[in-house]
Order: sequence, then C-alpha cells, then structure tokens
Amino acid sequence: MANFKGHALPGSFFLIVGLWWSIKYPFKYFHQKKKKDQLTRQYQRLEIIEAAIRLLFSIIGILAEQFVPDGPHLHLYNDDHWVKLMNWQHSTMYLFFAASGIIDMVTYLVTHVPLGVDRLVMAVAVLTEGLLFYYHVHNRPPLDQHIHFLLLYVLFAGAFSIFLEVILRDNIVLELFRTNLVILQGTWFWQIAFVLFPPFGTPAWDQKDDHNLMFITMCFCWHYLAALCIVATNYSLVYCLLTRLKRPKDGEIIGISKLKSDYTCQTALLNHSDEE
Amino acid sequence: MANFKGHALPGSFFLIVGLWWSIKYPFKYFHQKKKKDQLTRQYQRLEIIEAAIRLLFSIIGILAEQFVPDGPHLHLYNDDHWVKLMNWQHSTMYLFFAASGIIDMVTYLVTHVPLGVDRLVMAVAVLTEGLLFYYHVHNRPPLDQHIHFLLLYVLFAGAFSIFLEVILRDNIVLELFRTNLVILQGTWFWQIAFVLFPPFGTPAWDQKDDHNLMFITMCFCWHYLAALCIVATNYSLVYCLLTRLKRPKDGEIIGISKLKSDYTCQTALLNHSDEE
Amino acid sequence: MANFKGHALPGSFFLIVGLWWSIKYPFKYFHQKKKKDQLTRQYQRLEIIEAAIRLLFSIIGILAEQFVPDGPHLHLYNDDHWVKLMNWQHSTMYLFFAASGIIDMVTYLVTHVPLGVDRLVMAVAVLTEGLLFYYHVHNRPPLDQHIHFLLLYVLFAGAFSIFLEVILRDNIVLELFRTNLVILQGTWFWQIAFVLFPPFGTPAWDQKDDHNLMFITMCFCWHYLAALCIVATNYSLVYCLLTRLKRPKDGEIIGISKLKSDYTCQTALLNHSDEE
Amino acid sequence: MANFKGHALPGSFFLIVGLWWSIKYPFKYFHQKKKKDQLTRQYQRLEIIEAAIRLLFSIIGILAEQFVPDGPHLHLYNDDHWVKLMNWQHSTMYLFFAASGIIDMVTYLVTHVPLGVDRLVMAVAVLTEGLLFYYHVHNRPPLDQHIHFLLLYVLFAGAFSIFLEVILRDNIVLELFRTNLVILQGTWFWQIAFVLFPPFGTPAWDQKDDHNLMFITMCFCWHYLAALCIVATNYSLVYCLLTRLKRPKDGEIIGISKLKSDYTCQTALLNHSDEE
Repeated sequence: MANFKGHALPGSFFLIVGLWWSIKYPFKYFHQKKKKDQLTRQYQRLEIIEAAIRLLFSIIGILAEQFVPDGPHLHLYNDDHWVKLMNWQHSTMYLFFAASGIIDMVTYLVTHVPLGVDRLVMAVAVLTEGLLFYYHVHNRPPLDQHIHFLLLYVLFAGAFSIFLEVILRDNIVLELFRTNLVILQGTWFWQIAFVLFPPFGTPAWDQKDDHNLMFITMCFCWHYLAALCIVATNYSLVYCLLTRLKRPKDGEIIGISKLKSDYTCQTALLNHSDEE
Repeated sequence: MANFKGHALPGSFFLIVGLWWSIKYPFKYFHQKKKKDQLTRQYQRLEIIEAAIRLLFSIIGILAEQFVPDGPHLHLYNDDHWVKLMNWQHSTMYLFFAASGIIDMVTYLVTHVPLGVDRLVMAVAVLTEGLLFYYHVHNRPPLDQHIHFLLLYVLFAGAFSIFLEVILRDNIVLELFRTNLVILQGTWFWQIAFVLFPPFGTPAWDQKDDHNLMFITMCFCWHYLAALCIVATNYSLVYCLLTRLKRPKDGEIIGISKLKSDYTCQTALLNHSDEE
Repeated sequence: MANFKGHALPGSFFLIVGLWWSIKYPFKYFHQKKKKDQLTRQYQRLEIIEAAIRLLFSIIGILAEQFVPDGPHLHLYNDDHWVKLMNWQHSTMYLFFAASGIIDMVTYLVTHVPLGVDRLVMAVAVLTEGLLFYYHVHNRPPLDQHIHFLLLYVLFAGAFSIFLEVILRDNIVLELFRTNLVILQGTWFWQIAFVLFPPFGTPAWDQKDDHNLMFITMCFCWHYLAALCIVATNYSLVYCLLTRLKRPKDGEIIGISKLKSDYTCQTALLNHSDEE
Repeated sequence: MANFKGHALPGSFFLIVGLWWSIKYPFKYFHQKKKKDQLTRQYQRLEIIEAAIRLLFSIIGILAEQFVPDGPHLHLYNDDHWVKLMNWQHSTMYLFFAASGIIDMVTYLVTHVPLGVDRLVMAVAVLTEGLLFYYHVHNRPPLDQHIHFLLLYVLFAGAFSIFLEVILRDNIVLELFRTNLVILQGTWFWQIAFVLFPPFGTPAWDQKDDHNLMFITMCFCWHYLAALCIVATNYSLVYCLLTRLKRPKDGEIIGISKLKSDYTCQTALLNHSDEE
C-alpha cells in the first residue's frame, strides 16, 4: 500500500507498541526490586496478553493485505506473472510478527520452552522486515530510497539489541533502547507518509534535491531525540505513580534501587546471584 | 556441478543434518536437568559418531567431486590452464567440513583438547563456504546472483552464531538457531535447484525480471519460517516422548525445567554455579 | 562552518575532553582499589559537574551555530528552500551531546535511573555525529571525502566501545580506549583544518593527488599513536602523583592493584564478587 | 618494497611468530592447571622477552625501510612532493608493532598498568596494518587487489579476536585462533610473493584472468587449513613432551584438564572462581 495510509497505519501501530513498552518496562523494573514470585506471575500473564494482541493484529494485517479490494486474494501466481507482490511482502512481514507473537505466548505458557527463544524469533522478525525493505527500495528516486534506508538503521540496531537480550535477558537498558527504537520506527513511518505522499494538497517534495536529503537525515536524528524524550517522560511518570501509590514503602524502593543499581548490568548478566 | 542434482544433493545433506540436530539438541537439553555424569558420557559418544559420519560424508564428497567422469581426477593445473576449478572449490568446502569433523572427534576423544576449538573450526568451515560462494557468483545474471547471496546471509549468521558458542557453550537457544539455519540452508539449496535448473520440463525463470527477484526474497523468508516450524515441532515431539517414557519423573522434569529456565541464559554463561 | 575555525574549535573541544578524561579515569582506577563508599560519592559529584559543563558547552554551541551573523537564526524553511542546513546539522550534533549531558546528570542525581542509560545515550550521540558526517561528505573532492571518512572510523569505533560500557561498566581498558579516541578526534579536527583550509597563506593541497591521500591515511595512524602517548603519559603522571602524595600507603596500592588486576576484566564483568 | 623479498621477509617474520605462539600457548595452557604463582612469574618473564624481541625487530624494520639505498632517509616532503610514501607506510606499520611491544613489556613490568591494554594496542596495531593495506591496493590490477584483500580478512578477523581477549583474557581457544591467523598471514605473504613476483624466471600470472582469481581464493582456504594443521601438530607435540617429562604427574594432568575443561570458556570469563 504505497500511499499515505499505508505508512501512517503501521506507524501508528509501532507508536502504540512503543508507548506501551515505555510504560511496561519501567513498571517491571521497579517491581523487580520487590517480592519476586507473586509479581513475575502477573507479568507473565501480561506478556501472554501482549503476545496474543500482537498475534491478533498480525492476523488482521495479513487478512487486510490479502482481501482489500485491490489485494491478491491469496493468489500468488496467475497467467504467467506474480500477483500483487507488494501485498504479499507486507503479509510476510505480518506473518513473522505473528510467529513472534506465538513463540512469545508459548514461552510463557509452556514450561519446557527455553527462555530466549522468544527474543531470538523477535530479532529474526525485525531482521526479516529489514531484509524485505532493503530489496524493496531499489530503483527508486534518491529521497524515497534514503528515507527508507534510514529506517533500515533502526531495524538493524533493533535486531542487534533484541539479539543481545537472548544473552542479557531483563536488562532494563536494552529494553528501554528497544522501546526507543520502536517509537522512532512509528514516528518515522508517519514522517515517510508526510514526505512521500503529502496530504492536505501540499506540494510534493523534490525527490532529487540534495538539500531535502540533508534535511531528512537531520530530521531522523530529531525523531530519535523525540522518542528518547517520550521514553524518559513515561519512565518518570511510572516512577512518580509508584512512589505516590506506595508511600510507606517509598524510601525502601529508592534505597534498594540505588544500592543495587550499581551493578545492575552485571546482575542482569548474573541474575543467579539473586537466587542464591 | 552446476545442475539440479548438484544443488539438490547438498540441500538434502544439510536438511538431514538439520533434522537430526532438531532432535538431538532438545533431547540433550531435557536430559541436562537430570543426573549429569552418566548422560554426558552418552552424549559424548553420540557427538563422536556424528562427527565420524560428517567426516565420512565429506570424504565421499571430495572423492565424488574429484572422480566423477568429468571431474579433475586430482589434476589442478594442466597445459597452461586450471582444471575444473568448480569441482576443486567444492572439494575444498568438503575438506573444511572434514576438518571440522576431525576436530569434533578429537575434542571428545582426547582429553587435553580445549572445548570450544570444535565450534571455532566449525564456524571457520561455514565462513569458508561463504567466502567461496561470495567469489563464486560474480558475473552471473541477477537472479542467480541474488538467490546465492541470500544463502550468504544464512552462512554468515550461522558462522556468527557458532562462534558465539565458543563462549556460550551448550546454550540451547544458540543450538536451536544453528539447527534452524542448517535446515534453512538445506531447503534453500532445493529452492535454488528448482529455480535455476527447473526439472520436469517446466520453463526457465526470467533471470532479469525484478518481480522474480522480489518473489525470491519473500520466498526466502517463508523458508526460514518453515524451518522454524520444523524445529518447533521436533522440539515438542521430543518433549512429549520423554514425558511419556518417564511418567513417574514427569512432574520433576517440568518443575525443575521451569525453576531453572528462568536463568538458563545466565547459567549457560555461568555454568560453574552448577558445579558449586 | 566550513572554514579553519569551524574545524579547529571542535577539535580543541574534543582535545580538552580527551585530556581531562586521560587524567580522570586513571585517578578513578587507582582510587577504586581503596575505600569505596566515600570516594564514589566524590566521583559522582565530579561526573555531574562534567556533565553540566558538557551541557553548557553544547547549549553555547547550539546558540553560536544559530545566531552567528550568517546563521539561520532558528529559521528552518524560508521561501521554498531550507535555511543554512549546515548550521542546523551542527546544532543537531550539539543537541545530542546536550541530551547525553542531561542523561549523565540525571543518572547520577536521580536514584531510580538505571546505570548504563548514560553510556547508551552517549553512544547514540556519537553514532548520530557519524551518521550526519557520513551524508555530509557526499559529492566532495576525494581528499576532503577521505579525510572525513577517517574520522568516521574513530566515531564508529568510539560508539562501539561506549556501547560495550553499557555491559562492562567501569572497565578501565574501555575507558582509556574512549579517551584515546576522543583525543584522536580532537587532533584530527585540527589536521582537517590545516589540510582543507591552510592558514598562514600556505598553498592549498591538491585534492585529487593520490599521494596526498596516501600521506593522510598514514598521518591518521600517527595521530592515533600520538594520542596513545598522551594517554600513557597522563596515566603515568597520575600514578606518580598518587604515589608521592600517599607515601605511607604506597606499597599497599601496588600490591593490591597487582593481585587484583589479574582478573580486572573479569571483575569488571562480575563486580558483584566485590560486594560479597 | 614491492618485490619478492619485500613480501617474503614479513611473511617469514609472521610465520616465526606464529610457530612460536603455537608452542607457547599450549605450554602455558597445560601449565595453568598446576601450581600457579611460580609459573606465571616465569611466563611473565617470557612475555617480556617476547615483547622486547618484537620491539627490537620493529625498530630494525623501521631503520631498514628508512635507510635502504632507495629509502627516504627520514625525509618526508621534498621539493613539492612526498618522498617514498610506500617506505613510510611500512615504517608506520612497524611503528605500531613497536608500540604494541612497548605496551606489552610495560604491562608485565610495571604493576599499575591494567591488563588488557596490551591486547587493545595489539588489536589496534593489526587494524592499522589493515587500514594501510586497504588504501594501499586501490588502482591495482584485479589479481593484485584480490590477493591483498584476502589478507585484509585475516587482519580484521585477527583484530576482532585480539579485541575479544581484552574481555576474555587467557582464553586458549582465542589464543590458538590468533596463532592460526598469524601463521596464515605468514604463509600468505609468501604466496603473494610467489604470485606477484614469480622468482626463478617462471612466467608472470595473468592478472585479469578470472580463473586465477578463483584459484587464489581457494588457495587461501588451503593456507588456512595448513596453518590449522601446524597449530594442531605443535599443540600435540607440546602435550606429548610435557607428558613424557613429567611421567609421575601424568594422570593428574589429564584428569584435571578434563574435569576443568568442561567449563573452560566459562572460567576464562569467570576466572575469579579459581581464586576463591
């Protein structure tokens, strides 16, 4: 769907996921300091619901791409030519996120699935999105190509960061980085929509002007910074909320979090020391 | 052997290895939770047999490439030109897998060889395959080049993952990822065979059509997903089998596996805590 | 500011930061061996002051880029064209360093911010500088392009090294490497200034001469070596100073530092063993 | 020195270093299992001697490059052109290895230098060699370019592996890999000498023939395998020697090495557990 809606929709989707994560992970991080067993069970239920919703939306996405009026309606090859490959590619992307959703659910529901598999499949889903995008934008005008390439940096950084979580699970810094990149991806999709398919009758951008390329590169950095601010704000809000709700245990949270945070990264790597 | 058979054969080979690994590693993973000493000795014997078979097949491969009727028969340079360099390159690939097989055997048989060397040599064998492929496909039509390039991604991801196992040995997530990539490599070789050398008299693919390139990229993603499903299915089958066979110890397996799996990745990194 | 001053100024800035770090980190390293609680509080205050100064200079940088006589004065788009994009790009770079400064301050001031976030944002700031530089130098003469590309190696190596510090915090080797690269960046900016905008009326360099390219590559290596010497010298000076000042505890420092340094890298990874 | 001698000489040098390492590291590895304090002091003396020799040869190399009859004699710029930049580049390479030698000596001699710095500087020295080579081979015939590019893979893999040693110090697998790559570099330099400057009056190679390129790629893989065999042979010889010399403690060595080697990688990462 190479139009405004086709970029604004996934943009909104990623934005919502990112905003949700920017609330979920700080919550989890502050809770981890306290009684563990009871809470982790709650978080597991949360993860399962999140994965189920991801799965649901991915299926809706696949069906939408296939059965929109000008979609391929599950026909792949017809009369010596491929049918609507663009829609098929988008379906494939959704398929991977659906697979990632299923694996996420299974990891928490079924006891014998090793943790880390969920992150691995998520990293592969993001890499796949990157791979399809990469071969997507060949033979396009410079600005179109460049604006999509910048997205690739987000995807590869994201895949790398998620892959690291296979080894360094529950590391809050990596989780916040991932959140940051998802929000960036969301806002950048909106930016692409506005640049390539200007709504409200604004004039089209000159796709070959070097100054436009320069501005877009810089604009991408601003989006990152905006995403960073959003994550930071939500992180603070969650902290304030938790502090207000649980006044009596207030000092305890701060005290522990500081004492422990000194070697947070190390304990993320060495969680076992907590269990001892 | 640039024909259908020349791609279907290695494809089948990698497929069989992948399917075998998708059974072996889950077995090992579930067994690791139990009495250690007795079982690891069994697994060491298994590893040695596997390595021996790999070595055997590699030697057969080398001999086949050399002594097929139109092979080089061990002649490398003749009358001012190189003899059948393609066959020599394939022989070289087999040679590295043979070396990897020998090192694997030696690592388990001889007590003073440091663990990790086997993984390092396997990673180098995969990298070598990638290197030879990379310089293999220059000056070919776009589709031919693209379909082989996608294989390179598998090889480099595989080499990276295997190299990580030097440090994070016996990490089930990395082992399953490796299994996944080997199966993908196997099915992709079959795909290459069908695309570049269509059997059953089907018409040849247009090697310069952009739509064919787009489809192949997407098809590659589907192969990954299919490989993932195969690994997941075999993993579940192994679990069911073990649960059925050992009913009385059933609860124990699940209980332990969950309690422990919470920090599986960490303990993979920190196995020493088990020994304490 | 594509002139001599525009390169000499940031060069001096990075040089000062690097020199400061080459003193700070050895100090911290030698102190870490001793009473911990009291000193770390002093170092936290130091970090906050450093971050505040970084923030201040970044804001001055942004204001200077915007309000110099030929600056954009906060106008971005005017009469159908972008206004002074170069100044805007430089402002963006400063903006990221300002953000990094704020996060650094917050990490030490506010107790509930996880350690590691400061390094992540610093790594992203350096990556952003690299990204903007990368798309900065297209369509320039070979020497200009090459001399800026060499800077990119510094930036990417720096970003990688800083990102590693998210996981391996307080690793003196990585900190000294970072120091080294900042000094290199500082001296290299001066080199760029002298090559592209020769002061004192010396003749301009031939931008297409291959020999000039060869010399510049080699010169870059010399700069690295010079930076290494500076770091080594300052490291030694700090050690001598500390040894002289604290004669009675002299033997203790050396003794402990050697006993411990045997597994410095490991403890950087496993700091928790210190707390046990 | 773009002639046969200019490649055979460094080749022999790297070959000798590699062969020496292929004996030193197995020795160290087998000894580490036993009484520690006494032996490590011996190995430290060994490392210092090795570094001193490296330094000595680097200085000889620099002097040779500068003062050979057609060398630059320390003149860099003369009459509006650069003097003998090739010799200067080689001098720079030697300079980095000299710096690495000095840092190695200092790390073992002076107690307050953090371990890991020596590996970092060695990695940088190898990277520098790679950087200079990379910009060395532009505008050359295809075979010349290709044969030098293959060397770059060795250098970058080496730099990566050495950099890993900053974190995973004394990991025998990484040390053997490094040894392997140094031997490969040595034999490959000899190969370059024979291909580009055929001695004994053999005819020159056709630098544009694709078959020559294909053969050289394959030949590179064979060199790796040969280097692997050399390392494996020397490793076994060292083991046999140690077993023969110390018959009474024979069983002990094997027993301990196996019991421990099960988590060698982990302990390399977690050396502290040894100290407990």
